[in-house]
Formats: sequence, structure tokens, C-alpha cells
Amino acid sequence: MSLPSQVRLIEVGPRDGLQNEAQPISVADKVQLVDALSAAGLGYIEVGSFVSPKWVPQMAGSAEVFAQIQRKPGVIYGALAPNLRGFEDALAAGVKEVAVFAAASEAFSQRNINCSISESLARFAPIMEAAKQHGVTVRGYVSCVLGCPYEGEVAPEQVAMVARELYAMGCYEVSLGDTIGTGTAGATRRLFEVVSAQVPREKLAGHFHDTYGQAMANIYASLLEGIAVFDSSIAGLGGCPYAKGASGNVATEDVVYMLNGLGIKTGIDLDALIAAGQQISAVLGRPSGSRVAKARNAQ
Amino acid sequence: MSLPSQVRLIEVGPRDGLQNEAQPISVADKVQLVDALSAAGLGYIEVGSFVSPKWVPQMAGSAEVFAQIQRKPGVIYGALAPNLRGFEDALAAGVKEVAVFAAASEAFSQRNINCSISESLARFAPIMEAAKQHGVTVRGYVSCVLGCPYEGEVAPEQVAMVARELYAMGCYEVSLGDTIGTGTAGATRRLFEVVSAQVPREKLAGHFHDTYGQAMANIYASLLEGIAVFDSSIAGLGGCPYAKGASGNVATEDVVYMLNGLGIKTGIDLDALIAAGQQISAVLGRPSGSRVAKARNAQ
Repeated sequence: MSLPSQVRLIEVGPRDGLQNEAQPISVADKVQLVDALSAAGLGYIEVGSFVSPKWVPQMAGSAEVFAQIQRKPGVIYGALAPNLRGFEDALAAGVKEVAVFAAASEAFSQRNINCSISESLARFAPIMEAAKQHGVTVRGYVSCVLGCPYEGEVAPEQVAMVARELYAMGCYEVSLGDTIGTGTAGATRRLFEVVSAQVPREKLAGHFHDTYGQAMANIYASLLEGIAVFDSSIAGLGGCPYAKGASGNVATEDVVYMLNGLGIKTGIDLDALIAAGQQISAVLGRPSGSRVAKARNAQ
Repeated sequence: MSLPSQVRLIEVGPRDGLQNEAQPISVADKVQLVDALSAAGLGYIEVGSFVSPKWVPQMAGSAEVFAQIQRKPGVIYGALAPNLRGFEDALAAGVKEVAVFAAASEAFSQRNINCSISESLARFAPIMEAAKQHGVTVRGYVSCVLGCPYEGEVAPEQVAMVARELYAMGCYEVSLGDTIGTGTAGATRRLFEVVSAQVPREKLAGHFHDTYGQAMANIYASLLEGIAVFDSSIAGLGGCPYAKGASGNVATEDVVYMLNGLGIKTGIDLDALIAAGQQISAVLGRPSGSRVAKARNAQ
């Protein structure tokens, strides 16, 4: 067993978290959250999404958020840009890193973004081209890597195919997401074994949801497979869009706590991180989804 | 990596879980819970505790519970018996298996049971003797194996010493408990490495609390160390007595879900288990602490 000596955490709370919150929050609260996260030492923060506010009202104001955050040197402030229009809006907002996403399941791709997997990949081509021209880096997401709400099981080979395409198109890193949280540790290990035959291991990230309580075990299993980049969400923001009231994104605080215990460096100050999570939880008016935060708060 | 092909789960909800619930529940509700758990396929259920109701009012009526449950052949119905008086009461109630517990931390032993670790072990001698005479089997618990609320870190060698004593005294199995839930996966592995030099690995069990979100990763880490017996609590009953509002015992449903995913046999019917958890959660009037139950309930 050799665990990575350091791990990069991709904070997805302000985007992937808040976009699933029922109640949209203000630009000022988002800015405060992003700045608290960079101050806590996070090196990558997904700030917002450039999509039509008709479809995702929670992400309205992403340009204003980008305009108002205090950019800390060395920190990457990313945004989701699902199409060229979104990419152009992101560019106009001064975004230097965007994320695109595809599904590993045909049924999910059709229902979620109204096109096949290959059509969705084809749509990214002009984004990749424009990004290259403007010196913008692109990160790729693959969803439903350990199960699909419509299809059930998803073969790791199918995930590998989509991940390879994104990597070949120019995504410098591909994040594999267990969108519905049904994956367990053994399947996680097999997934990274299979996908890493197509995309170098150091270019892969894990994105786990805790809907079935498996996220932390899956992250530990991924670490044992040499994966050293994970997406997580402050205070577990976001819940699960496929099971109301259930857990979704794994909480950044809980991941950092584990990594600290394993002696793996993250550059993150856990106390400052917990404070950032308590602040946004207060804004949302509900308890944090982080168990570390709950335990600390209870003491 | 070779995982065990089957795992025995020790259901501690009716005892370790309910004894930490603020509100005592009726004998009838406890009986219904125990019978639902045995029907779901659990092979070991810790039914109650024979202690003074002055100290633990939640456990009053344990003898009545034992009298009223429907004993399913092959199922072990255990009870905690912290002293000889408790053992005799358990015996009178027809109990065939008792559990005793010691702490791995001196400070915890002093504050929790008012005596040193060696004094507590000495007190078990007459219980072990009486148990042998009456053909009662004895299981041992060691608490604070990965941290103490008063002392902080606890050396694995100290845990090994206490576990070895319990095993030498005649406990057929020793369960190592992360009472405050601060342990992480690497420490868990080292713990079992060190303790298994003193007590055979197949005589050890893991008892993890999810207070800091680490229980599932720690169970997976334990499986990788060849540990094949785990304590867990239906619906995550019990919370954390050291951090009000925080998580405590890992939920049996979530553990079974992971073991199913890993292809490890438990003999437990997950749907029936979830139903048992929903029933007791309704009695307690609060949501289940199992994320699997929440996800299923939300569908």
C-alpha cells in the first residue's frame, strides 16, 4: 500500500453544491463563501456556472461573483461552461479555467442534456478550440461512473471510453463522478484500474457522493489506487438531486480530516474550513452536512 | 488485497444505541425491534444491559425484553453485564451470552467506571468464572482504541495489552471500539496490525463511530486487514454521548450496503433491515441515521 503524499482538493460547493440548493443565495454570500474557501487554503474553487438562468436560477450572477471575489494568487477559480455560449460568457467574466461534463450513461446523457454521449463530446470541440486560443484550461467531468439512475449499472469500460475522449480533446484532468452515490469500494478500485489504462492515473480525479454512505470508503479506496485529486463540497452542500433529503456531495471537512489522519498534505487549514462551512450553513439556515463540523460544533 | 468472503455483524442498536437515546422506549417497542432484526437475518443482537436503572434508565426492563422476544434458532441474544450482580440478573433472565467492557485509556476508565483499567479487569474475573460454570459465553469490548476524550491519543500497544488480557481471561472475541470516532483509516490498520500480534485476528472485531465521518472508511480499512466481525447499530441509533447532535454508531444498513457491494456475505436482507430501522426511527420520532435508509426513503 502506498498512499499519495499529497492530495489536491477541488472545492465544488459554490457551484455543484449551491446549484442543487432549493433556495438561491445572493452574490454577496457566494463571494464571501469563495473568499473564505481560498483563505482556508483551497487551491481550486469551482465558483459558478455559465448556463441560462432559466435552467439553473441558482447560478444566476456567476459573472458578478467572479467580478467581486478577491483572487488569491495561485488559486484556480473555475466555472462550468456546458456550451460555447457559456464559454464566451465565462471568458467575458475573466474566467481562466472551465469545466465541461459528459455522462458515462446514454440514458443519463439523453435525459440530462438532451443528446447522446457522442453528440455531447462533439459539442465540446469548439469550446476546446476557443479555450486553447484564449489560454483557458479545461477540466472534464464524467458523471454516472458507478451507476445511473435510469440504466443501473455502468461498465467501467464505458467510463474509460468517455474519459479517454475528454482527455484526448484536451481536458488536462478528468473527474469521475459517482453521481448517484451507489458505488462501493471494490467497484471504485476496478473503475480506476480500468480507466487508468486509457488516461494516466495522475490525470484522474474522484468525485464521490455520500448518498448511500459510501463516499469516504470510496475515497480511501481511490487513494489506495494512487488517485490524488478529489472533488468535495464544503458542508456537504448540494444534497442529492435524485433522492430528496438524502446526502449528496461528500463534505470537504470530512475528507480533509481523513487526509490529515493519513498524513497526506492538502495545504488546507481545517479550522478555517469548518468556519467557512458554518458560515454558509447559517446563510442556508440548516445544519452542516459535514460530520466533522457537527462534532466540532457540539463540543 | 484479500477481503474476507463473509462478515458477521453484531447488532448493538437495542443496547449501545438505545442506552444513549435521551428518551427511554417501552419494552414492547424494544421487543418489536429485536424481533425485526432477527427476522432480517442478523445473527447477533445485543438486546440490553443489566445495570442499575438508576445509572442507565434506558436499559430498565432488559429482563422483560429477554422474556418477550421470539428467540430465533441460531441467533445470539447478548447482554452487557458490567459486574457480577449484572451477570446474575442476566443469568436469571435466561441470557446465554454476555459482554464486558474495559477501556484502553486510564483516564476514561477512571471517569467512566470509576476504577483503573487493571481494577476493571480484576472485576471481570468472577464474571468469567461464573460464566464458565453456567455455560455462558463472554464477549469483550475495549473502548477508546483510537483516541480518548480525556487523554487524546491512545497507543495501539496499550489497546493490545487490554485486548490480550480480556482474551486470556476467556473472552472468545474482543471488539475494539473507536468510542469518540476520531480514528482514521491508517491508524485503524496499524491498530489491527499491533493488536493481532497479541490476539488472533479472527478473534477481533471492529466497532466504529461515525462522529467524524470516518466509520465506513475505517471498516473498509479493517476488512483489508482481514477483520471479519463488526459492531453496528440499526438506523445509527445512539448518537455520540461526547458530542451532542453528532453521529455515533455506524448504521448497520450502510455497512450491509457496502458489504453487499464488495460481494461479502452477511446473511442479512437489506430491505428487511431498512424496514426495521424505519420502524424504530418512527418510534423515536426522528429521521434514521442511516444514509442508505434516507436514500431509499427519498426515492
